[in-house]
Amino acid sequence: MDLRARLEAFRAADLYTVITEAFCAGRPGLEVLDACLDAGVRLVQFREKDWSDRALFEGAKAFRARTAAAGALLIVDDRVDIALAVGADGVHLGQEDLPARVAREMAPDLLIGVSTHSLEEARDAADQGAGYINIGPLFATRTKEVPTGALGLDAIRRIRSEVPLPTTCMGGIKLEHIPEIMAAGAERIAVVTAVTAAPDPRAAAADLRQAILAARS
Amino acid sequence: MDLRARLEAFRAADLYTVITEAFCAGRPGLEVLDACLDAGVRLVQFREKDWSDRALFEGAKAFRARTAAAGALLIVDDRVDIALAVGADGVHLGQEDLPARVAREMAPDLLIGVSTHSLEEARDAADQGAGYINIGPLFATRTKEVPTGALGLDAIRRIRSEVPLPTTCMGGIKLEHIPEIMAAGAERIAVVTAVTAAPDPRAAAADLRQAILAARS
Repeated sequence: MDLRARLEAFRAADLYTVITEAFCAGRPGLEVLDACLDAGVRLVQFREKDWSDRALFEGAKAFRARTAAAGALLIVDDRVDIALAVGADGVHLGQEDLPARVAREMAPDLLIGVSTHSLEEARDAADQGAGYINIGPLFATRTKEVPTGALGLDAIRRIRSEVPLPTTCMGGIKLEHIPEIMAAGAERIAVVTAVTAAPDPRAAAADLRQAILAARS
Repeated sequence: MDLRARLEAFRAADLYTVITEAFCAGRPGLEVLDACLDAGVRLVQFREKDWSDRALFEGAKAFRARTAAAGALLIVDDRVDIALAVGADGVHLGQEDLPARVAREMAPDLLIGVSTHSLEEARDAADQGAGYINIGPLFATRTKEVPTGALGLDAIRRIRSEVPLPTTCMGGIKLEHIPEIMAAGAERIAVVTAVTAAPDPRAAAADLRQAILAARS
């Protein structure tokens, strides 16, 4: 897929599941991935922080095979080289990762997402040519420490009104929050543990998707 | 530079200094880099393991500016993306990093080095299209734990006679070892602390170079 097709597929997505094996309640990450794909999730991030590069490559390759078979987008966290090596659709960059501009020059066909925690960071990501931004954390979360603290729901509309990029919203989101987050202007929702640590990840993903779609209609 | 020119410059090098700031005895890595370049070192590796990607990018960029000005090759440890992002000459891969074959496909102009600890690993690196191999550790070293243990000097000729790639030898090498290592078939020597932790890195690099050149002639 070229970047245009990837952006289109991103815009069509509702739920973005971020999978880190350490948050999968003892299950293999691939098992949770399969549950997500089975629930109709079409946007997945492979996020592992402490693995060797070889393990990242092998893990991302396995994610790529399954997401490709399901027609889902695969975004790799942090690593442009791993994303390119496995033919992922994109890379997600934090503020301490490679600058989006540099990633874009290296990999013009990758969809580049950037974690943003303020209007300023969101504008900067757009200036650097990001393909999408994540807005967060909306609430307190245990998967990531962010020095800026929780943003709250007002940030969604403020950022979206000023920054012309597709967005995800993330950070401590649970099923019961979906209506208020969507009402506050969110387009789609990204989660980690709400799916990966759920007793039934397939059901959790399906419920989240249904809540997002219901709020959109 | 294209790969051919990079390989030629690699073959012309005598001493390969690997710089990790934590082993620079409290000095900035860039200060030690300048000392190396001033001593005539023309092959340098930027190796940092625990830095954020942003810090790796900024650090490698500063190394690139100085090595380019001095006409020295810059190799980045582990990270193909950082190497590409800063325009480095190559990337050095361990056995737990991206496979050399994958790195080569991603970055055909990069000189790809591989750490090898046995004849089997050296052959495999050649099969995968590596540009050079490192043979080591020759002796016990404090900068890297290798499960295979020290190789000893016999490994140099054994590997070189079977694997047609330029080599470096590494691992616990001090100035007084140079004559025996070169006599055992080494082409060039890679060091970390013998230069970076020396009281006078410039003098240490100059002495090591002189010993390598003397053993060659």
